[in-house]
Amino acid sequence: MNFASDNTGPVHPKVMDALINANTGYALPYGKDDLTKQTLQDIRNLFEAPDAAVFLVSLGTAANSIALATLAQPWDTIFCHTLAHIHKDECNAPEFYSGGAKLTLVSGPDAKMNSDNLRNLILKEENRGAHGPQRGPISLTQTTERGTVYSLEEIKNIASVAKEFNLPLHMDGARFANALQTLGCSAAEMTWKSGVDAVTFGGTKNGLMAVEAVILFNPKHAWEFELRRKRGAHLFSKHRFLAAQMQSYLASDLWLNLAKKANQSCARLVKGLKENSEVQLDFEPVTNMVFAHWTRASHQRLHAAGAQYYVLAGDYTTGPKREMLPARLVTDWSATNEDVDKFLDILRG
Amino acid sequence: MNFASDNTGPVHPKVMDALINANTGYALPYGKDDLTKQTLQDIRNLFEAPDAAVFLVSLGTAANSIALATLAQPWDTIFCHTLAHIHKDECNAPEFYSGGAKLTLVSGPDAKMNSDNLRNLILKEENRGAHGPQRGPISLTQTTERGTVYSLEEIKNIASVAKEFNLPLHMDGARFANALQTLGCSAAEMTWKSGVDAVTFGGTKNGLMAVEAVILFNPKHAWEFELRRKRGAHLFSKHRFLAAQMQSYLASDLWLNLAKKANQSCARLVKGLKENSEVQLDFEPVTNMVFAHWTRASHQRLHAAGAQYYVLAGDYTTGPKREMLPARLVTDWSATNEDVDKFLDILRG
Amino acid sequence: MNFASDNTGPVHPKVMDALINANTGYALPYGKDDLTKQTLQDIRNLFEAPDAAVFLVSLGTAANSIALATLAQPWDTIFCHTLAHIHKDECNAPEFYSGGAKLTLVSGPDAKMNSDNLRNLILKEENRGAHGPQRGPISLTQTTERGTVYSLEEIKNIASVAKEFNLPLHMDGARFANALQTLGCSAAEMTWKSGVDAVTFGGTKNGLMAVEAVILFNPKHAWEFELRRKRGAHLFSKHRFLAAQMQSYLASDLWLNLAKKANQSCARLVKGLKENSEVQLDFEPVTNMVFAHWTRASHQRLHAAGAQYYVLAGDYTTGPKREMLPARLVTDWSATNEDVDKFLDILRG
Amino acid sequence: MNFASDNTGPVHPKVMDALINANTGYALPYGKDDLTKQTLQDIRNLFEAPDAAVFLVSLGTAANSIALATLAQPWDTIFCHTLAHIHKDECNAPEFYSGGAKLTLVSGPDAKMNSDNLRNLILKEENRGAHGPQRGPISLTQTTERGTVYSLEEIKNIASVAKEFNLPLHMDGARFANALQTLGCSAAEMTWKSGVDAVTFGGTKNGLMAVEAVILFNPKHAWEFELRRKRGAHLFSKHRFLAAQMQSYLASDLWLNLAKKANQSCARLVKGLKENSEVQLDFEPVTNMVFAHWTRASHQRLHAAGAQYYVLAGDYTTGPKREMLPARLVTDWSATNEDVDKFLDILRG
Repeated sequence: MNFASDNTGPVHPKVMDALINANTGYALPYGKDDLTKQTLQDIRNLFEAPDAAVFLVSLGTAANSIALATLAQPWDTIFCHTLAHIHKDECNAPEFYSGGAKLTLVSGPDAKMNSDNLRNLILKEENRGAHGPQRGPISLTQTTERGTVYSLEEIKNIASVAKEFNLPLHMDGARFANALQTLGCSAAEMTWKSGVDAVTFGGTKNGLMAVEAVILFNPKHAWEFELRRKRGAHLFSKHRFLAAQMQSYLASDLWLNLAKKANQSCARLVKGLKENSEVQLDFEPVTNMVFAHWTRASHQRLHAAGAQYYVLAGDYTTGPKREMLPARLVTDWSATNEDVDKFLDILRG
Repeated sequence: MNFASDNTGPVHPKVMDALINANTGYALPYGKDDLTKQTLQDIRNLFEAPDAAVFLVSLGTAANSIALATLAQPWDTIFCHTLAHIHKDECNAPEFYSGGAKLTLVSGPDAKMNSDNLRNLILKEENRGAHGPQRGPISLTQTTERGTVYSLEEIKNIASVAKEFNLPLHMDGARFANALQTLGCSAAEMTWKSGVDAVTFGGTKNGLMAVEAVILFNPKHAWEFELRRKRGAHLFSKHRFLAAQMQSYLASDLWLNLAKKANQSCARLVKGLKENSEVQLDFEPVTNMVFAHWTRASHQRLHAAGAQYYVLAGDYTTGPKREMLPARLVTDWSATNEDVDKFLDILRG
Repeated sequence: MNFASDNTGPVHPKVMDALINANTGYALPYGKDDLTKQTLQDIRNLFEAPDAAVFLVSLGTAANSIALATLAQPWDTIFCHTLAHIHKDECNAPEFYSGGAKLTLVSGPDAKMNSDNLRNLILKEENRGAHGPQRGPISLTQTTERGTVYSLEEIKNIASVAKEFNLPLHMDGARFANALQTLGCSAAEMTWKSGVDAVTFGGTKNGLMAVEAVILFNPKHAWEFELRRKRGAHLFSKHRFLAAQMQSYLASDLWLNLAKKANQSCARLVKGLKENSEVQLDFEPVTNMVFAHWTRASHQRLHAAGAQYYVLAGDYTTGPKREMLPARLVTDWSATNEDVDKFLDILRG
Repeated sequence: MNFASDNTGPVHPKVMDALINANTGYALPYGKDDLTKQTLQDIRNLFEAPDAAVFLVSLGTAANSIALATLAQPWDTIFCHTLAHIHKDECNAPEFYSGGAKLTLVSGPDAKMNSDNLRNLILKEENRGAHGPQRGPISLTQTTERGTVYSLEEIKNIASVAKEFNLPLHMDGARFANALQTLGCSAAEMTWKSGVDAVTFGGTKNGLMAVEAVILFNPKHAWEFELRRKRGAHLFSKHRFLAAQMQSYLASDLWLNLAKKANQSCARLVKGLKENSEVQLDFEPVTNMVFAHWTRASHQRLHAAGAQYYVLAGDYTTGPKREMLPARLVTDWSATNEDVDKFLDILRG
């Protein structure tokens, strides 16, 4: 019963197989090997973006930070949601990589930037000449940090604001696959066809060991990204092992199938939670994350039974039994129906 | 016949096995898993340094840059050899991570800093108050960038200069194992017992997929390193897979055996090169790297036969046949006697 | 009728005299001259802080940014009010000087941080280990960006939160003198006696040409500040001319008298505004700044008559005559009663 | 007898007068005042560069660092002479402003980069893809740090290398006027007509209080410079007082006359030094700086008599009387023949 995070789960066996298969003899380092070249092409094909510049790195923080640093100037402010991972959980990595850009926080329900709020905040900048921060890129997270998903129309609304001010639009896609599963559209539709300029295409939370791709649909910044990646110490020498993971991820829609599995486990969980009158759902879950409240007594019972997940506020170990405390549950591709059902059983008491 | 670099070779099968063994169910992320804890302890044991702060990262550039940034202030200058990898081949990563520290280049024969030169250059700083750069850490590379090795006495000489000025001493040990094999001493002797304060303990060039350890013998900077690692986007979520590689590397002296094998292949190569009157060795090879000159005609013959290695200057494809051009050869753990002998045969013509 | 800003006004004649008097023969550069030494001592005396480290720079942005960079780590977040000048009007200078620290915005009425809001925001950080930003210094502006003033008790409340979390407290005192006049307390009482650790003591907005002092009450960071000042290109060679300004500013309470004059002009202005039923004051003015609304027609009449001040939102030149538009008025030491009265007359129509 | 530095001398009375004249009533801040506009135009006229972007800052370190940061990328290396002030005496300010660019040191006699050495060092970069630093701007100092001067032909030779590699050429002109006096050419000839792209036009060492101009002959980077200046905390609010200094400096060739006077004092000094058989000149002085050796006994005699100048190495107070120690003498515009002659007399013993 591990619902702590989708980065606690195992690597999919096909990915491990790909690593083993890639481990034959010598290969050119630093991404000059054939496997990497093929894989980058596979990604271009997936995104229907033959001219895109594509890069592999091993961490989402790196992918987002280098992409944003490439799109932003140090005197810019980057617009993102109040709950954005790039703001809350990267120890100022975007500030570090960008050389000191600022982040302007845009509120909006369901962890999604409201495009009117965004527009108003953009309007508040660049009206004081060189004195204020300059308008920089916009970054949205898809799947959001609360497990919700921007609809294509919502993405287009954000993109329309970006276009109005000629600002680049970045998508943090750490859980890209889960959102795509939910929307049932193509990777191109969820990105450049909706106005996204650069995307972090996550793999680590969805069955890979440690690989994320960055896709710049306009390749004009390709060399700058390359230099920033090297300077940030993110250019792997044995690059074939990043490529191998990513290639196996794309083959036979493994990436989509894993996300589907994670989402299905979540849906099963949600169904059970909804049947439990004690549980209050904070958002309507549509991917692989649940944010909900239940009593301290239930938290204690679950933890005593070995369930692993985050209690987001308060100390579940001590205090009034009936106090409602917030939880976050994440299902990864390897979650089992047994675990889900067992969790629901214990929660029911 | 691939002697291009020790980062072009395969991962050792035992390391692959360790990755597969680690891939069971859920594990706490970000280094909080048991495997990581054990592995860090294994490293402390190896270095006889029970209090050391130990970290795993995936790239040597990251290991060196974060370590140096932790030891240096942005207004410092870091002292290193003219040929140091941190100076020549990291696209200003140390400058980036340190927030703009400078590198002062110290010359010395055999790619090793001469301690008198080092002392003189240190004396030239901090005599102009706040105007000049301040004296910062000293960084030596062991094995050096030319395949030579600092003797323990030479390390102690450098460390003695460091102590005189109260400067920390860092060792870039991308090829730590190869040097240790050559010196036949312990890891502790080659580091803290000789006055080294922080070391990058390399694995990637010696049979791992992508893992390096940083050991800070004085743990006072441990939390700062942790924050710099996160901010630099080098804190792996599925950390167990870094640990698994490193643990298998240390088990049964695999790391030393692989280095021994690489060094032996190199020695076989050197023996053959010395018997070839056309070849001029630039340094006496003692680890797994050869720097030598031979004629363009021989370079052409070798490349035509499929040999892979770097010609360091000049265009081997065109020009006078008898002109001597410099080559770099690196043997990794997987090099075979057959390949070495074949190379020597072709070189002989 | 210039009420645009207190940085548009002239230098006080006594300050010009001091510059001329300082211009005799040679003097040691970079602050080693006697005039600088005396002046730094004058500041220590004023603040009753014999051990304080004191520095002169020429711009408030530099004073604040270097002070904050000295108090913050790059992975920290600095807590300041939503309207703080360091956030809105310095083109990311604090982010630049600190190497990428973040700013967390604390709301509160009257442009003053509410200490409960501050405490809650501090509590939200450092509960995610190395993942989130770390808690950094707190910066308050006295006089605030809206012309209001923290009472000593309010400063102590902020300081008490700072102490609780062991965070340094910085005061941006660009209009320090105006606030002190209002509070009628001593410089020591408004700073270290109320828990402030570092203060920017402004002069440029109050009759100097371009000088601000930074006082670090705990001198432990003195040398770091010195290096950061030099590295930021803010160490004047002909330093005596900064000192001369500051010395004349402190002599015979010139600084307090100038602030008194500016505040009195403002009070006269406010009295008249209150008598004008069209005018809505946004804050109760207590120093030298007024934020108020009046009709577009009145804005047009004033501008036509040559009045200079900022209309903070909307286009005063076109639109409904009776629409209320916000204005900011600032009185400097050289404002005359005639100008104030003339302005009020025209506004009355 | 103060020959310590041309930044220890007084401000010229005409410049003080200009400051007083500028101190009338209100003026728009941040360079929007008429005086600034006129002065920037005066500089464009002087340089025969109607399209140039021109900026005033108060320190040479700021001028050079912001200019170089505007011309360089963080992953570049800036080429400058081994003795360059930007390398030795700015506490890593260029590294700070550029976000971590490197400086490659180019040797050459008489403190001037040899264009062949420069070319060879440029050729050594950008041949390792993203691994090494990238080729960045070239910076030469005119007058050099040893008081020598690049001839127009030498500047053109450097510029020709810059053009060959499409690199921008920056001139640190802290003592621009002194060099121009020596060469007897126009400001345009010594800069853009010889291939210089950006110049720091110094004033502080030649009679101003604290003003330097930066001229970007190609204005494409104008807005970036503006933002970097603000973010670096170098945008003066009471900007008219920078402009006033610079305008008076240009009026009636004051700047050239002051440099002429400084150079003449130096020539008189040199003449006397050459007549003294004990003195060894290190360079042939052609501007306002002398580097020479004489005995410790003479150093002691001069200092006892109150002479002020730097002894560059060794302790003049103790040691063998006849040991030769190096001195640096700088004459500023206010040096008198009496002081020069007195100095020579005492040196003669």
